[in-house]
Amino acid sequence: MVDPAAPARRGRPGHDQQAVLREAVALFIRQGYDATSMGDLARALGLSKSAIYHHVASKEQLLGLALDAALAELTEAVEAATAPAYDAGSGGSGPSAYERLRVLVARSVEVLVAHQPEVTLLLRVRGNSPVELAALERRRWIDARLADLVRAAVEEGALRDDVDPQLVSRLLFGMVNSLVEWHRPGGEVDAAVLAHAVTTLAFEGLRAPTPG
Amino acid sequence: MVDPAAPARRGRPGHDQQAVLREAVALFIRQGYDATSMGDLARALGLSKSAIYHHVASKEQLLGLALDAALAELTEAVEAATAPAYDAGSGGSGPSAYERLRVLVARSVEVLVAHQPEVTLLLRVRGNSPVELAALERRRWIDARLADLVRAAVEEGALRDDVDPQLVSRLLFGMVNSLVEWHRPGGEVDAAVLAHAVTTLAFEGLRAPTPG
Repeated sequence: MVDPAAPARRGRPGHDQQAVLREAVALFIRQGYDATSMGDLARALGLSKSAIYHHVASKEQLLGLALDAALAELTEAVEAATAPAYDAGSGGSGPSAYERLRVLVARSVEVLVAHQPEVTLLLRVRGNSPVELAALERRRWIDARLADLVRAAVEEGALRDDVDPQLVSRLLFGMVNSLVEWHRPGGEVDAAVLAHAVTTLAFEGLRAPTPG
Repeated sequence: MVDPAAPARRGRPGHDQQAVLREAVALFIRQGYDATSMGDLARALGLSKSAIYHHVASKEQLLGLALDAALAELTEAVEAATAPAYDAGSGGSGPSAYERLRVLVARSVEVLVAHQPEVTLLLRVRGNSPVELAALERRRWIDARLADLVRAAVEEGALRDDVDPQLVSRLLFGMVNSLVEWHRPGGEVDAAVLAHAVTTLAFEGLRAPTPG
């Protein structure tokens, strides 16, 4: 995104767009997107405002890049789990809807841990701008695919049918998303342990397995 | 809280402290606590600012009242589930830790649904003022009691012991708290249905019971 023809006055060397984005996301989380100015960002990076504009066009572009980073990987995981090849009647013998749902839940935890700041922003989006509205639209698409997959797993007979699939989908991914509230990036619990805990709780439940 | 000696110039009749508080909570949720002024609140209520001050001393008092409403019921539910009489060795024959945990999870869902706006605020508190710090302190007390109760249920042999109790406690109440993100007060899903769905998912898990 940096115009190679732009004058090379970058204030301090070594700041590329990724570094600017990282700091912007941290500020947006700490003090809120609306309350953060490009001036705040420049100060946090020790750069001039014009140096920031060598890397990004606007605050909204920074938000868009952050939300895209979270959404791209989530979308990819959902697409992998719900490819048309898996549809009933396609004659395939791939993994069941239940198996794909279980993998998707685990994968969601991993994406969240790998992109925790960006996912935190995504979960706070309320639709106050075109960038936010586009992100909400993509979240709704993901939510609808998740609910379909839960429904398919119920229809297969693999999941209990006494709880509404839409409600199950919300609770399941509500639990996944709640990780952003307490998990510390690089903290004591790693992604694989978390993914195992979430899938075990969700699918097997907390009750001790009855012996035998 | 209304001083009976205060002059009776209330702008519009019928506004008591509860009505002011309700509107304040709605504004705090919609536009953020920091970004909301007493002037905004007066405008939303169609009252003068001085009329508002007949009902409450400050914006911070309104936040404190809202957080207290959420915390009082949650604290009561936690105290009921973790009374010292239940401690091992007290010789009682009351409900097991597992039974008390299960009731507490269901009760937490009901409290959240009954006080959804106040719980939403509580979950957003970041500790920017003495009122917020006091609320965080009370949340930490609740979280510690919950983790203790999960641990007691594991020790009883009622809950699986292959997932860390602290992690279980966070995931369990992360799922409960995530309700504020999508549940609409007075919406299509009632508290009893939600409480049943949450406890079933958490304790029995989503996998269909094996027949027989």
